[in-house]
Amino acid sequence: MHTQTIPLPAFSLLAIAVVSASLSLLAAAPARADGPYRNRDNKSTYDLSEGTYPVPYQKPTREEITAVLDRVRGFLDQAAATRIVDRRTGDQITDWQAAPVATAVADRGEGGYFYNFDYTMGVVHAGMLSCAEVTGDKRYTAFTERHMRFIADALPYFRAQAEKFGQPEKNSFRAILHTRALDDCGAMCAALIKARRAGVGPDLKPVIDGWMDFIAHKQYRLPDGTLARQRPQPSSLWSDDFYMSIPALAQMGVLAGDPAWLDDAARQVVQFSGKLFDEKTGLYAHGWNANQPDNPEFYWGRANGWAMMATVELLDVLPAEHPRRAQILDYLRKHIHAVAKLQSGAGLWHQMLDKNDSYLETSASAMFVYGIARAINRGWISPVSYGSVAQAGWIAVAQQVNSRGQVEGTCVGTTFASDHVYYYNRPVSPYVTHGYGPVLLAGAEMIRLLENPKLDIQYKVRTYHYVPGE
Amino acid sequence: MHTQTIPLPAFSLLAIAVVSASLSLLAAAPARADGPYRNRDNKSTYDLSEGTYPVPYQKPTREEITAVLDRVRGFLDQAAATRIVDRRTGDQITDWQAAPVATAVADRGEGGYFYNFDYTMGVVHAGMLSCAEVTGDKRYTAFTERHMRFIADALPYFRAQAEKFGQPEKNSFRAILHTRALDDCGAMCAALIKARRAGVGPDLKPVIDGWMDFIAHKQYRLPDGTLARQRPQPSSLWSDDFYMSIPALAQMGVLAGDPAWLDDAARQVVQFSGKLFDEKTGLYAHGWNANQPDNPEFYWGRANGWAMMATVELLDVLPAEHPRRAQILDYLRKHIHAVAKLQSGAGLWHQMLDKNDSYLETSASAMFVYGIARAINRGWISPVSYGSVAQAGWIAVAQQVNSRGQVEGTCVGTTFASDHVYYYNRPVSPYVTHGYGPVLLAGAEMIRLLENPKLDIQYKVRTYHYVPGE
Amino acid sequence: MHTQTIPLPAFSLLAIAVVSASLSLLAAAPARADGPYRNRDNKSTYDLSEGTYPVPYQKPTREEITAVLDRVRGFLDQAAATRIVDRRTGDQITDWQAAPVATAVADRGEGGYFYNFDYTMGVVHAGMLSCAEVTGDKRYTAFTERHMRFIADALPYFRAQAEKFGQPEKNSFRAILHTRALDDCGAMCAALIKARRAGVGPDLKPVIDGWMDFIAHKQYRLPDGTLARQRPQPSSLWSDDFYMSIPALAQMGVLAGDPAWLDDAARQVVQFSGKLFDEKTGLYAHGWNANQPDNPEFYWGRANGWAMMATVELLDVLPAEHPRRAQILDYLRKHIHAVAKLQSGAGLWHQMLDKNDSYLETSASAMFVYGIARAINRGWISPVSYGSVAQAGWIAVAQQVNSRGQVEGTCVGTTFASDHVYYYNRPVSPYVTHGYGPVLLAGAEMIRLLENPKLDIQYKVRTYHYVPGE
Repeated sequence: MHTQTIPLPAFSLLAIAVVSASLSLLAAAPARADGPYRNRDNKSTYDLSEGTYPVPYQKPTREEITAVLDRVRGFLDQAAATRIVDRRTGDQITDWQAAPVATAVADRGEGGYFYNFDYTMGVVHAGMLSCAEVTGDKRYTAFTERHMRFIADALPYFRAQAEKFGQPEKNSFRAILHTRALDDCGAMCAALIKARRAGVGPDLKPVIDGWMDFIAHKQYRLPDGTLARQRPQPSSLWSDDFYMSIPALAQMGVLAGDPAWLDDAARQVVQFSGKLFDEKTGLYAHGWNANQPDNPEFYWGRANGWAMMATVELLDVLPAEHPRRAQILDYLRKHIHAVAKLQSGAGLWHQMLDKNDSYLETSASAMFVYGIARAINRGWISPVSYGSVAQAGWIAVAQQVNSRGQVEGTCVGTTFASDHVYYYNRPVSPYVTHGYGPVLLAGAEMIRLLENPKLDIQYKVRTYHYVPGE
Repeated sequence: MHTQTIPLPAFSLLAIAVVSASLSLLAAAPARADGPYRNRDNKSTYDLSEGTYPVPYQKPTREEITAVLDRVRGFLDQAAATRIVDRRTGDQITDWQAAPVATAVADRGEGGYFYNFDYTMGVVHAGMLSCAEVTGDKRYTAFTERHMRFIADALPYFRAQAEKFGQPEKNSFRAILHTRALDDCGAMCAALIKARRAGVGPDLKPVIDGWMDFIAHKQYRLPDGTLARQRPQPSSLWSDDFYMSIPALAQMGVLAGDPAWLDDAARQVVQFSGKLFDEKTGLYAHGWNANQPDNPEFYWGRANGWAMMATVELLDVLPAEHPRRAQILDYLRKHIHAVAKLQSGAGLWHQMLDKNDSYLETSASAMFVYGIARAINRGWISPVSYGSVAQAGWIAVAQQVNSRGQVEGTCVGTTFASDHVYYYNRPVSPYVTHGYGPVLLAGAEMIRLLENPKLDIQYKVRTYHYVPGE
Repeated sequence: MHTQTIPLPAFSLLAIAVVSASLSLLAAAPARADGPYRNRDNKSTYDLSEGTYPVPYQKPTREEITAVLDRVRGFLDQAAATRIVDRRTGDQITDWQAAPVATAVADRGEGGYFYNFDYTMGVVHAGMLSCAEVTGDKRYTAFTERHMRFIADALPYFRAQAEKFGQPEKNSFRAILHTRALDDCGAMCAALIKARRAGVGPDLKPVIDGWMDFIAHKQYRLPDGTLARQRPQPSSLWSDDFYMSIPALAQMGVLAGDPAWLDDAARQVVQFSGKLFDEKTGLYAHGWNANQPDNPEFYWGRANGWAMMATVELLDVLPAEHPRRAQILDYLRKHIHAVAKLQSGAGLWHQMLDKNDSYLETSASAMFVYGIARAINRGWISPVSYGSVAQAGWIAVAQQVNSRGQVEGTCVGTTFASDHVYYYNRPVSPYVTHGYGPVLLAGAEMIRLLENPKLDIQYKVRTYHYVPGE
């Protein structure tokens, strides 16, 4: 069977652009306008004090959350391919023992948007494993199993291709064969270790070791050891790199039983925060450049999402007695406090967190729902203060999953830029993969929150109270 | 004549819901769109520098303010009943000496929304007494006279009913016969004392004493004496309770000539503010829960209105030499400074004071106009800084009084919740009683401001300056 | 030829009012809605990550900027007259040696809006001289040459008129003959000195000396020497007065070679900032009144523009070793940092800088573009942090120049008021002259920025980076 993986037909892309533009114009309006909604938990039909909501403000059920997660998984099952194709012809290559073809690449799936080694795929695997844990549904592990096996099985083919034809292309497993940046390895390596610890998929220890060696010894760092990039400026920090390094370091600490990995992860949180966390707003700036004295402060939603998720992942495994634990917890609490205050009236958060005239963005919102719900479940923050924030956030995020299981309203990949005109006008598209993993993580964590035996979730006077139970 | 007090016909409630929904959608837009308006004080017909306003930005006259107040009083005269009815049949019960009927209740007036003992009725009486004082119009005192007499006359009937049939229903004077919370007594008790001091209505001293005993000795308090609630969490503070306690304590201090009442009132302001006032924003959080370390900060408009009004009422009677007076004045000044900065371009304030994408809300706005105008009239704050804020606020509030005299755009009763989705989407309705008393108080105080002999109100270069006169 | 200078026909004014009203309603929307625009620098036709913008977000060329500047100059060439007319008849008076006519006035140009001595005309001349410098186009100097010559040539006529008929009218060179306020002289005097230093126009040293004497010895000052006004309150400071005094003092320091002028200018920046600069927001309040303890903080856009422009003009000539230079630079950096963070997603800034529901205003935006670009070109602030802010700001400002060369979207003259309802609803009009000079200055400085040999302007990943070059 011939498959045309690249490019997507032009008309589809134009359609996407049109959708993006109209979403941008809608700005603060929710992406899906089926509402207004009345809270079904209020059984009093005529109640002057019950209004309507732009999202279905109510306590979700496990079944409803699971239905959303299933839809997302279903879409990813078919959209995220694990095949080798000839990029010239689109033909599938099935004989991986034969001499490699120069133009063989991994199939990037629907529309060419689902790259197997994208850092967002690392989050997807984390989400699938979490969903499997909370639902017991093997179809979630099957997704990760399929992808891990593809990596293991196709790697020799692409290694041979690279040896024969030189420098691999991006889609020819370059992330493994020629790792160049944290984006290539951090999030995926964390996923590989999580899968290994969960007993999912084949042995990928050599890939793990190669990537961890890259993070530990080859990635550029500031003199104090902070992981940094040489773009867009020399010695730039990106809040995105919280997630591109810390989960991998944290997981490796557990896998290897070696506290040095955890020490490096903890150091990253503290040193990143020292440069990027703004004490006045409680938010993380998107980036920091060593070559400018007066750093701009763009409180981009997703950058804050990466920071929150990575901090949570580290705290999950950092020993209670670790000397940096209290400081890291303190950053997380201040961050969640600030983020919670900026939730919009429609449940989602804004593209620029501190700008309520910027559009509502899905991926950051899902990251916050996950981070907040997880922090409550772990006992790190007050359920009273934050339980209904997570619930209202989830309700809004769930509305962004369309009937195909696509996650809508996610901002495209965004560089560390220098002006608000750029940030405000980043387009959104369901083909942006950054929202998928966070939605899976958020939904799984919300199920845990709803079923948290330490909590008593009360519906009182038309709203919700997450109260410590007995 | 048979009167169906409860329920309001279904179609009316639906109509209200529709109005609420559309108001929410309009958000920052003014409720009544007769404008745009041109400032009539600018006599220059062709003036490039004179724009238009969403409200009639201009200096109001005593006559115009009085007309608004008269309209509101006229509506309340007919909407707020003082009758006993049989809730089963709707029949009026006129023989109050006969054996009590088990299903007798106080008539809740138009639509069932005007409960005689509602805390908002306490504010209405305060407003009526203030309007009477400033206008000399006996119709304002007549309203309060009628209600106070109803309380005195019907109380024996409902007491006998309770003795015969057990626990009284809410509408059978339960607020007096079985006081359970500050909401039952604080605002109304302050009104009873004000009426007594003004020589309005019959002797209700036993009711006053019973309620003050409740506030002093029966209401739950924190160990340090701060008045608190057991909802929504154990040991919660509500900024609303500023008004549910402090005016009563302040008035009782004067009535009884006993400084202990004033000391308790002053302590409440200081201790409430210690937990609820945010020094960074200058605003009061809606509430505080003892069981959460990281308190959410919902700067709900009306909660701030209650705090400002109560503080002003206490300062009105607190002796100049009281040891806490300076500290309380300092809180008031910081609060007014912050609130003034958040006035919208349409004159009203937002439902969430710090969120300019939340809707414009009438009751809080009226409370601020009253508090600011009163503080100027008392000489506590600068007329230069705040005079035109009060004026512009009143102009906008007055637009919310419709031709029937109903106050529109007021947020319904709102619990201390934990997420912005709840707060942003609270409905509004003219049947919400929280706006009526504040509008009466604000209008009366505005007349005093316009006629304040210490002020010179100047119209210069298309705007207004309230300047200390000679 | 007879010319009716005053008034503008009524229907034109009404048309302006309508435009103003609709602009106000549009609020955050750009004035000219030809977009959305796609960045032409992105050559990839199908790029999911390239959205659209409300303004043509892209690197402008010298030619494009020059075309905008030429259009503005063309409009001013015809709109800003240099003629004497009889205000009774509209007849031009050409014989300036004859006995003066009592009703002779300087022609105020198109619609009567282009007053030769307006402080905004001082900014226009500064802009013309800067455009001449950067473009080499003599038509820019010709404008200023024509106006300076008119001042020199017509002055004896109006002086004779004043001697014969008493107190001159405003349009009879009263700004020179009877200087009464900084608005009369500061900005224009700076322009006269700049023209003199550039060798443009006739000898106007006596006018310069008269005005500098007024600023130095006759203008009202606070006891500490801060330049102040007696309106709207006794002893008021206006941030506008940054520009009405400091550029003149700075230019005179250079012209006279006397450091005392620079010392006074430096003192004004420091003392004004002490009262008007808010450390928390990094913004300048519009004004400060000595007679109010609790100063309101209206962060009006143009007031901040005046402060930024004046500070930049002083730093341009203040010696590196001046004792106050570091402090002044520090104020400028904090101010630019705060202003940059408040740029809207459409490139312009808001009428009230901290209120994103107030309309987008052109004159302040142009002032910021000039100030930021100049500060980068002078090496005072980081090009990395602020280069693309200036670029995006310019792109948006340029959209406000219509096909006639009129600058649209500028707020009319605005007094130091006390309420947000006033500030939010100030009308805009192309006949407001405050935007013209700033647009000329901004465009000229943008050309310098684009051609700054110390900068490497990189287009990378769909946005712009202004990087220190080699």
